[in-house]
Amino acid sequence: MEKRSKDEAVIRRIRMQKEMARHGMEGCLVTQNVGLYYFTGSMQTGYLFIPKTGEPTYYVRRSLARALEESDVRTVELGAFRQFGAKLAEDYPEVFGRKPALIGADLDVMPAQLYLRLTEAVPQASWMDASAALRVVRSVKSAYEIDKISQAAEVADAALREGLSSLREGMTELELMAVIENSMRRAGHIGLMRMRGYNQEIMTGVVAAGEAAAEPSYFDGPAGGRGLSPAAPLSSSKRPIMRDEPILIDIGCCIDGYTIDQTRTAVIGELSEELLHAYETSEAIVRRTEALLKPGARPDQLYFEALNMAAEAGLSSHFMGFGGDQVRFLGHGIGLEIDEWPALAKGFSEPLEPGTVVAVEPKFTFPGIGVVGLENTYVVTETGCRALTKSPETLFCL
Amino acid sequence: MEKRSKDEAVIRRIRMQKEMARHGMEGCLVTQNVGLYYFTGSMQTGYLFIPKTGEPTYYVRRSLARALEESDVRTVELGAFRQFGAKLAEDYPEVFGRKPALIGADLDVMPAQLYLRLTEAVPQASWMDASAALRVVRSVKSAYEIDKISQAAEVADAALREGLSSLREGMTELELMAVIENSMRRAGHIGLMRMRGYNQEIMTGVVAAGEAAAEPSYFDGPAGGRGLSPAAPLSSSKRPIMRDEPILIDIGCCIDGYTIDQTRTAVIGELSEELLHAYETSEAIVRRTEALLKPGARPDQLYFEALNMAAEAGLSSHFMGFGGDQVRFLGHGIGLEIDEWPALAKGFSEPLEPGTVVAVEPKFTFPGIGVVGLENTYVVTETGCRALTKSPETLFCL
Repeated sequence: MEKRSKDEAVIRRIRMQKEMARHGMEGCLVTQNVGLYYFTGSMQTGYLFIPKTGEPTYYVRRSLARALEESDVRTVELGAFRQFGAKLAEDYPEVFGRKPALIGADLDVMPAQLYLRLTEAVPQASWMDASAALRVVRSVKSAYEIDKISQAAEVADAALREGLSSLREGMTELELMAVIENSMRRAGHIGLMRMRGYNQEIMTGVVAAGEAAAEPSYFDGPAGGRGLSPAAPLSSSKRPIMRDEPILIDIGCCIDGYTIDQTRTAVIGELSEELLHAYETSEAIVRRTEALLKPGARPDQLYFEALNMAAEAGLSSHFMGFGGDQVRFLGHGIGLEIDEWPALAKGFSEPLEPGTVVAVEPKFTFPGIGVVGLENTYVVTETGCRALTKSPETLFCL
Repeated sequence: MEKRSKDEAVIRRIRMQKEMARHGMEGCLVTQNVGLYYFTGSMQTGYLFIPKTGEPTYYVRRSLARALEESDVRTVELGAFRQFGAKLAEDYPEVFGRKPALIGADLDVMPAQLYLRLTEAVPQASWMDASAALRVVRSVKSAYEIDKISQAAEVADAALREGLSSLREGMTELELMAVIENSMRRAGHIGLMRMRGYNQEIMTGVVAAGEAAAEPSYFDGPAGGRGLSPAAPLSSSKRPIMRDEPILIDIGCCIDGYTIDQTRTAVIGELSEELLHAYETSEAIVRRTEALLKPGARPDQLYFEALNMAAEAGLSSHFMGFGGDQVRFLGHGIGLEIDEWPALAKGFSEPLEPGTVVAVEPKFTFPGIGVVGLENTYVVTETGCRALTKSPETLFCL
């Protein structure tokens, strides 16, 4: 099994410590499986404590044996949870010597019950939300990470080809999705694309056609699809795919923890003038975004530019969902999770740095008719950007 | 699409209100997608408020249109989050008229960040953890729910048959799992088995062979498997399946929100005497549990009885994992989630009621060799229990 370099853990921790200093944190506790993996190389159950300076410790509940084998940082047994505060004070007297120590934690994902237990078990800490700091650090990827996302892109491309070659009129959305998922799974897709947002679930994306693709959705994306039932209201349904309707193939996979996300539009037959116009506007927005995507560019400006282009094309109310169900972004960071930072959205004004990876996904929704669009994943380079997505960028007409 | 009766929402809410009265709650706020679905029939993003008496309200962020179509309770737009407290006070003056009102919430799953925002947005509430109350209510299933779990059992059985018929020496665990998953997916599996526990992920179970099945795991179950990498340390790996080693096929699926969980052991060739003895002990524990599983039985006693039987068979250190990595239960409630209540474990002493659904999974782990065992899902009836699992209960020797 390919393993990342031990240096990754050191570099990431130092970057986090810089971010912690900016926020005045004296330490940071990471509790989420994905965060643990990012900093240690293992996602066994436990807690990682990162002090403001010096080395972190991974306190493991289960399995300690496996964590010891995988982790690149100091790794010890957690022991009794109620003694955790005493253990931290013993290991990090310079942090917990005076109270209260301002400690960050991943409060956007940590359950409230655990948070309340932590406030009791570690009474010498005063807690703050470290999720923004954690997300900023993770937004810039290492060469190892970019390589992993590229590997996932290869798998997604092969799955798209397999899906398209099996696509037939009358086949259900679910049948098409099952072909794509099976291709990805055999190639090592872990089975889901991890998503940070509460109550958000996505396995391999959204494959949906015609009006089913255009149904409003709880999903924090431009098109969620109808899904199988109110108990699984996302992605593919059992609706047959028909001629002359747009087929949205928004897929991704997760290889060794790293995720790709891409969208292509297909049709058996042809699309109406209206849909072709929207599809071409997606292409134009992708081209324009590629031209602007470079170090120093502001994520929010990329979104505003796309909004302008949608407006100029007369498609404002169809852009990124329809009417009241529109989402307010053009794209999103991606890596260990599918909803990483930065979002290409209002509120994200920090200039982009080399190594940042974003999925750009201009889409247009026509209620009762369908969704058309494109999505590519890019890494920001020293001078511009490079597509990580491998699939040919075209409207697939069968 | 089959829809549950509107009565379900009323019956469930009244059962919850009884449980709330026992805990002195004046209201309960449900925030998790699964909880929302349980009480409303919809899992669109929002919050459900259940007052101590009277009708609940589902405050929906997105998609309101879809929630209005699906929900069986009063459903309104959430609006600005910071006005949520004012909105609740207006809708439920009898609850929020005097402060502080003791309000329960699903704090075991709600992120701490949301909890902290709620304490600000609803200042007239004093919060308590309602997760135990919610889990007690959900532990007893309606006829509709039992029927859904039975449907999932049919899908799992068909997938097991498809998997076994494709099983060949040298096939990887992942290849076998991909066959099983594809079968389930085509039949409507939503793609994952929902799990409540923080950082726990499971899609379609654990298919693992030989020593890979016996590796210690973060997973809160008796056998987690090796997985694909430290970033996905659960279930199948790319290890080939060999002759004369136990193949653990612990699979499940989720149909219309409801989950089944079952385990069968297979072998290409034959198992050693030691493993056969352990497998037969699993069978004996299943038979004994079936005899005891009836209204009035205590879940913890079922576990203790299984512990005794494992001890009598000389297998204590192999039961439900090995050594320090053992889990301390014999089974678990199952329904909308795979880790529902009651656990068949210490601490669960409330007598079982008719309608309770539990998965019973005695397994034995031999490090470096493999895992053998069985798992069936049962519903407690008026007089005993009935298996919902459809697959033949045998050691599959190929």
